[in-house]
Amino acid sequence: MIKSIAGGVTAAAGFKAACCAAGIKYRGRTDMAMLFSDAPCTVGGVFTSNVVKAAPVVWDREIVRNVKAARAVVVNAGIANAATGETGMALCRQTAEFTGKALDIPADQVLLGSTGVIGPNLPIDRITAGVAMMKQALSDSLEAGTAASRAIMTTDTVNKECAVAFTLPAADGKGEVEVHLGGMSKGSGMIHPNMCTMLAYITTDCAIDAALLQQAVSDVVTDTFNMISVDGDTSTNDTLLVLANGLAGNAPVAAGSAAYDTFKAALFTVCRDLAVKMAGDGEGATHLMEMQVTGADTKEHARTLARSVVGSSLVKAMIYGKDANCGRILCALGYAGVDFDPAVIELYLIGRDKDLCFYKDGCVQAFDEDRALAILTEKEVRFRCDMKMGSEEATAWGCDLTYDYVKINGDYRS
Amino acid sequence: MIKSIAGGVTAAAGFKAACCAAGIKYRGRTDMAMLFSDAPCTVGGVFTSNVVKAAPVVWDREIVRNVKAARAVVVNAGIANAATGETGMALCRQTAEFTGKALDIPADQVLLGSTGVIGPNLPIDRITAGVAMMKQALSDSLEAGTAASRAIMTTDTVNKECAVAFTLPAADGKGEVEVHLGGMSKGSGMIHPNMCTMLAYITTDCAIDAALLQQAVSDVVTDTFNMISVDGDTSTNDTLLVLANGLAGNAPVAAGSAAYDTFKAALFTVCRDLAVKMAGDGEGATHLMEMQVTGADTKEHARTLARSVVGSSLVKAMIYGKDANCGRILCALGYAGVDFDPAVIELYLIGRDKDLCFYKDGCVQAFDEDRALAILTEKEVRFRCDMKMGSEEATAWGCDLTYDYVKINGDYRS
Repeated sequence: MIKSIAGGVTAAAGFKAACCAAGIKYRGRTDMAMLFSDAPCTVGGVFTSNVVKAAPVVWDREIVRNVKAARAVVVNAGIANAATGETGMALCRQTAEFTGKALDIPADQVLLGSTGVIGPNLPIDRITAGVAMMKQALSDSLEAGTAASRAIMTTDTVNKECAVAFTLPAADGKGEVEVHLGGMSKGSGMIHPNMCTMLAYITTDCAIDAALLQQAVSDVVTDTFNMISVDGDTSTNDTLLVLANGLAGNAPVAAGSAAYDTFKAALFTVCRDLAVKMAGDGEGATHLMEMQVTGADTKEHARTLARSVVGSSLVKAMIYGKDANCGRILCALGYAGVDFDPAVIELYLIGRDKDLCFYKDGCVQAFDEDRALAILTEKEVRFRCDMKMGSEEATAWGCDLTYDYVKINGDYRS
Repeated sequence: MIKSIAGGVTAAAGFKAACCAAGIKYRGRTDMAMLFSDAPCTVGGVFTSNVVKAAPVVWDREIVRNVKAARAVVVNAGIANAATGETGMALCRQTAEFTGKALDIPADQVLLGSTGVIGPNLPIDRITAGVAMMKQALSDSLEAGTAASRAIMTTDTVNKECAVAFTLPAADGKGEVEVHLGGMSKGSGMIHPNMCTMLAYITTDCAIDAALLQQAVSDVVTDTFNMISVDGDTSTNDTLLVLANGLAGNAPVAAGSAAYDTFKAALFTVCRDLAVKMAGDGEGATHLMEMQVTGADTKEHARTLARSVVGSSLVKAMIYGKDANCGRILCALGYAGVDFDPAVIELYLIGRDKDLCFYKDGCVQAFDEDRALAILTEKEVRFRCDMKMGSEEATAWGCDLTYDYVKINGDYRS
């Protein structure tokens, strides 16, 4: 049983967090966060598929692929350290070396994350001053985790964290122990499926080796972070990292075991929660949109169809306008690149009590406009399309397109 | 030599046009157009790649593929006749049969086009009344062509037409004759590369057989209509049709001849002009954006990269905000799905006198912000990226993302 608990990155045993106002770009708010584990961690991660990768992405990928261990994470908001060439990599190295010395851990076990404007170089003096400040402030309180989740925000309007607890067989063979897994994420613009969605950091006290952890992360990301879209832009910095320090005292999770399934389910729960929170907090968004595709012939087709709908500018503008212009959903399914028979599919607006049929038998259906308006007025709007081709399903999440999205992105640098 | 001439669909010999206010959805404006050729025409066409195809698309495709001849086109604005099932096809048949009888031509030589909201059925009584009115009003004047280009507008703010003249060897072997080719198009929302862009109708008095005409149309569309994007949504109705009646008196164009090259260049000129006009008149747009990709390894990669940039919501919002946030262009190139080396590419903002280098040697460059703002304040904004991989080039056109796009599409049905 996976149960929801309070907190985020400090919910698991042995993880501390801190943040500070380093003055990197923003004024009068925190803009750096640090995570630290009392014990060595295995690490798994997935990164942006963008050919243009930010320096911290290159840095972290090296650690995940080759070092396979980590003790700390240092994140800044305001500047992305992307498109910064060799200088950007040197700044990563300096930050990690400074942090390693400060925390008495190897520099190549310091993960880095940056988010913000592409192009400028990080002010290294402020970064190292921030690291020094945060070292003093590290705390395992839930509040410290929450404060860290606030410090990494850019255009986010709310901080995003989530944690769960579950039980696994104990390492000493005597019954079960409670294991914790929690995380934080940020991201509301430049978000689009394709691994993944800005910065997300998850910590757990579960004992699990690096290879198995990586497998779980790669599996889970497909139907969580990779199924949300805010604006179709896959960023240069997208990063999801999971650190596992083993302090829960469980018997190390074995491949193919029930314990692995439980761990993966817990990871899925937290990743989906963080992903949906990001979709709902899309830049300027007033609605969370959910698109369920059922009856697809393959899982991948179901995902592609669902993502096409939540990515459509016309559908997004229609959600903003609370307009039941269902032809746009149909249109977005039609150009997804997946073949289907428009004469047999069925499209529904999901209501609290009863679903409203928008389209079947090849025709847009007459429906109660007042009821549609009532449903579309809610904060969360859900659609379901049955492709009538098989039994595969997928769900994608997005948000509406609003004046505020344009406003936020028309003048982001200033 | 291809020279620009006045007019649009009636610029070529033997083509007449008419329009009327049929009251299909709009009030107080014309909303139907008709084209008629005095002589039989060969016909070429390309249609939407959307799986959900509007009834008139299915109807026209059958004529282009199998009948290979046409005499008239009937278009309505306001209702798309899409997602209308068998009823929609029956309405096409009725419209074509009525028109065929009225004009004394075969029903299967009447091409149809519809644009507007998806779902509702066409009011057939108003359509036939419109056809009867337009039959009386057919005229070969340039004004009649212009009026037709206005009648097919939906959210377009300006009508779009273009015509050229060129010379080809005469049929009687005595010197050369002047040949004319002109067209009209509409479209400003639900526009995205993938054949193509709403409704475009081109007429020519050139003598060219159907197979060769189709080849020219398919070739030309790739670097014209398929290279523009307004909002990433490929419509259910996209249609480009070219009718050739041979009345110019040229020797029929032969495959592989210089005459074919000339004809194709003329078709390219008109298609590009109409396509760029559509991009610049994107819903709510205040800027036309042009993205040139040079030095690509393959033509297809050049196209994909250029389209990715003009399709990016973040780039589009940045153009609206006149913000030289060039990292977003880099980011959009990076997620296009084409591999390249970010360390060697060079990105420029194209100025009247001198180009501004945004990015090279793997780094965003320092640039004169005032000059960038001056360039970005112009109505037409151009970027160029040299991929440094080869010699292939492509250009894509789009527009900015504005409050008005959201406004127009948040409440389109009412």
